[in-house]
Amino acid sequence: MANSRSIHGIPPDHATFAAWPPCRFRHDKPPMVAFGRTHPYRRRTSVVDDWNATTLGRFTSTRRQVDWIAQNPASCDHAWPQVSSPYRRQSSDMSTLRYDVTTNDWVIVAPSRARRPIEQPLRNTVSPKTAVQSCPFCPGNERMTPPEIDAVRPGSNLNADDWRVRVIPNLFPALQIEENPDSRTESSSFFRYRGGCGAHEVFIESPHHELALGDQPPDQIVLLFQMLQRRYNDLLRDPRFQAILIFKNHGEWAGTSMHHPHCQLIATPVVPRQSRQKFTIAEEYYDRTGVGLYSRLLEEELNEQTRVLAVNEGFAAVLPYASHVPFETWILPRTQQSSFGSVPSSQLPALAEILKRALRAIHAGLDNPSFNMTIDTAPRGDESKPWFLWHIQILPRLTRRSGFELGSGMPINTVLPEDAASFLRDVDRANAIGD
Amino acid sequence: MANSRSIHGIPPDHATFAAWPPCRFRHDKPPMVAFGRTHPYRRRTSVVDDWNATTLGRFTSTRRQVDWIAQNPASCDHAWPQVSSPYRRQSSDMSTLRYDVTTNDWVIVAPSRARRPIEQPLRNTVSPKTAVQSCPFCPGNERMTPPEIDAVRPGSNLNADDWRVRVIPNLFPALQIEENPDSRTESSSFFRYRGGCGAHEVFIESPHHELALGDQPPDQIVLLFQMLQRRYNDLLRDPRFQAILIFKNHGEWAGTSMHHPHCQLIATPVVPRQSRQKFTIAEEYYDRTGVGLYSRLLEEELNEQTRVLAVNEGFAAVLPYASHVPFETWILPRTQQSSFGSVPSSQLPALAEILKRALRAIHAGLDNPSFNMTIDTAPRGDESKPWFLWHIQILPRLTRRSGFELGSGMPINTVLPEDAASFLRDVDRANAIGD
Repeated sequence: MANSRSIHGIPPDHATFAAWPPCRFRHDKPPMVAFGRTHPYRRRTSVVDDWNATTLGRFTSTRRQVDWIAQNPASCDHAWPQVSSPYRRQSSDMSTLRYDVTTNDWVIVAPSRARRPIEQPLRNTVSPKTAVQSCPFCPGNERMTPPEIDAVRPGSNLNADDWRVRVIPNLFPALQIEENPDSRTESSSFFRYRGGCGAHEVFIESPHHELALGDQPPDQIVLLFQMLQRRYNDLLRDPRFQAILIFKNHGEWAGTSMHHPHCQLIATPVVPRQSRQKFTIAEEYYDRTGVGLYSRLLEEELNEQTRVLAVNEGFAAVLPYASHVPFETWILPRTQQSSFGSVPSSQLPALAEILKRALRAIHAGLDNPSFNMTIDTAPRGDESKPWFLWHIQILPRLTRRSGFELGSGMPINTVLPEDAASFLRDVDRANAIGD
Repeated sequence: MANSRSIHGIPPDHATFAAWPPCRFRHDKPPMVAFGRTHPYRRRTSVVDDWNATTLGRFTSTRRQVDWIAQNPASCDHAWPQVSSPYRRQSSDMSTLRYDVTTNDWVIVAPSRARRPIEQPLRNTVSPKTAVQSCPFCPGNERMTPPEIDAVRPGSNLNADDWRVRVIPNLFPALQIEENPDSRTESSSFFRYRGGCGAHEVFIESPHHELALGDQPPDQIVLLFQMLQRRYNDLLRDPRFQAILIFKNHGEWAGTSMHHPHCQLIATPVVPRQSRQKFTIAEEYYDRTGVGLYSRLLEEELNEQTRVLAVNEGFAAVLPYASHVPFETWILPRTQQSSFGSVPSSQLPALAEILKRALRAIHAGLDNPSFNMTIDTAPRGDESKPWFLWHIQILPRLTRRSGFELGSGMPINTVLPEDAASFLRDVDRANAIGD
């Protein structure tokens, strides 16, 4: 019962610590783990994800916790937890996957994620100089992160400050490399689970603390794509991983906890049901028609033009006919590419160019909204199937899902994609004139 | 092009107005529709769903709009739009369903929903007296809403102020009764859509502006359930509706726009893919095992006890093994009931009792969090199938979905349901002592 005891504030039982298993892959390096249980991290008052802290007994509500922090500023002037036990991890930190028999989804249960610190909104409360000093993603602060997995830099010193793109393990991972991926059942045999085996990496997109992805020079975005491809292809070699999702959270509404521009990658031991379903639908369409569903979709969108934001020699940015959220924007390749891992390096500049245009139009037109970005790509073993096109989805977080959408799964979109595309095209033209 | 013209601020073309079609059902009464396009409604600064207003040209960003409102208070001192054209509706207000060929989802595209007004958070900025005076859901303000569909009241005067539960059409409906539900294709034949035919009703749960659902007396909750059943069964008689979702949005994070306690119902012309999928999974389990999936799930949860919050003679409240979000709570019947519409009226007091206990524990334990509540029930024609149990899902909105969850569909839950259940049981016991 170490798990529930520690959550309720009783000191963790050291006898339950598991030694780190031997490394096997490069990304397998042990991240440093901190026991942040007693740190009253600064948090936004609106984010009530610190239920663990709430149940410590010291705080009975988030509001009281915030008041307490205001009265005790010295107790929490670190935005990042102390690194105390780099090679140990508590058993209750381990993630598991639980199988939902009613939906066939695997749910990641990751109690340790509830303890991750969340930066104060930097723009209003902290001077830029202080922000850079305390930001673990800024150059010079490499010691504040776990040892790096990979980096682009002119020199050869690991963890030096001369990098241009840097990859580190997530300090509060949703999945861990050392977990056993096999499926098991609870004592009752009705409830199934498996170890939360996976990888969770953070890509620091640039040394600049304030430079959003769309504002970076094209060659910097190319470096990022090269690094994403390198890590993606490296992780695919591990037979335990069935799917890899690359994603980005920008802004408070998109669930980010750090301001410094970064994106992430999670490798999962199962193909998520949603990805499998999209892939199967495309396969069935191909069987029926002999045509790729996504190629056909792109062709129709390019014919109609009304929902096209931008096109260049390799890629197109469109707002799909059945967009789930306002201003949803997809970037698709114009040639057959099922996997993000197989985009020819000669095409990365065109990809960077069109992504930059789309992000700048959304940023300028919608006043720097929160957004999520994901890369949807073929699962392991299906990378060369002709019925899929990998694509980027940009999902601005402008509205909240209500009970109807949660209960039915039917999205309600309040902006016609044709109007959204027309608006973004105007902004894109204005951006081009301004350059 | 009336649609895009009006959105861009040019006065709507009156020639495009469609007269209201003849009524057929009781719920078919024409709701009064307002053209709120020129009203700079008060909004929370964090809700950027007023893109239509943004593109009017007067405002180039939400922040500027809020500043403008602060400087021009007289221009927007009504929280509810003027009712000007009760029997007309503009063609661009019409919702459509668009088919997503990549996921098999139907997406509701409802531009008129972007114009609904959102109350200021009442607690801080408006005195209780003012709140009640301007609240269209409070007794005495019945003229501020469309004519009622149904009500529980001692007297017999429609739209009088002596009601205890009141049902009205949603003024900004996601779906409308007058739309043609048939499937059609755009000119290209690749993109499919159908009219946004449906019903969207609002249930005002109580005359009391401040009384949350869990704080209402049990007999008031029974009245609400009776009314929900009555409307549910009435709408099921309309062959155009394939599924009916009852849901509640409580609090800002759950997407509510009105403070006065209310829940809603949307009838859809298709069975949403998510509902169909859950039903099919249960059917396959029944075919394979001869046992109902949800009955088995409930039996296992009651055996294990660790995730059970409360049980009474008719129902059980449990936090499911594979909860998708922290503190997710389900209420299931302990006898075979596939449809919410067929719960015997003798069991409604037990249902009200257990719902009240669950909501009070969540309210007190988590400091009145935002939450959504949905009723998951068998689709039309499957109401007597033995493999499903209708159930209530309570989904506290404590965390935000990140790019990983959006891109993969795999939920990340940061609180073990066993810990959440143990915590809520403690609160439930304390509540019982306090009574």
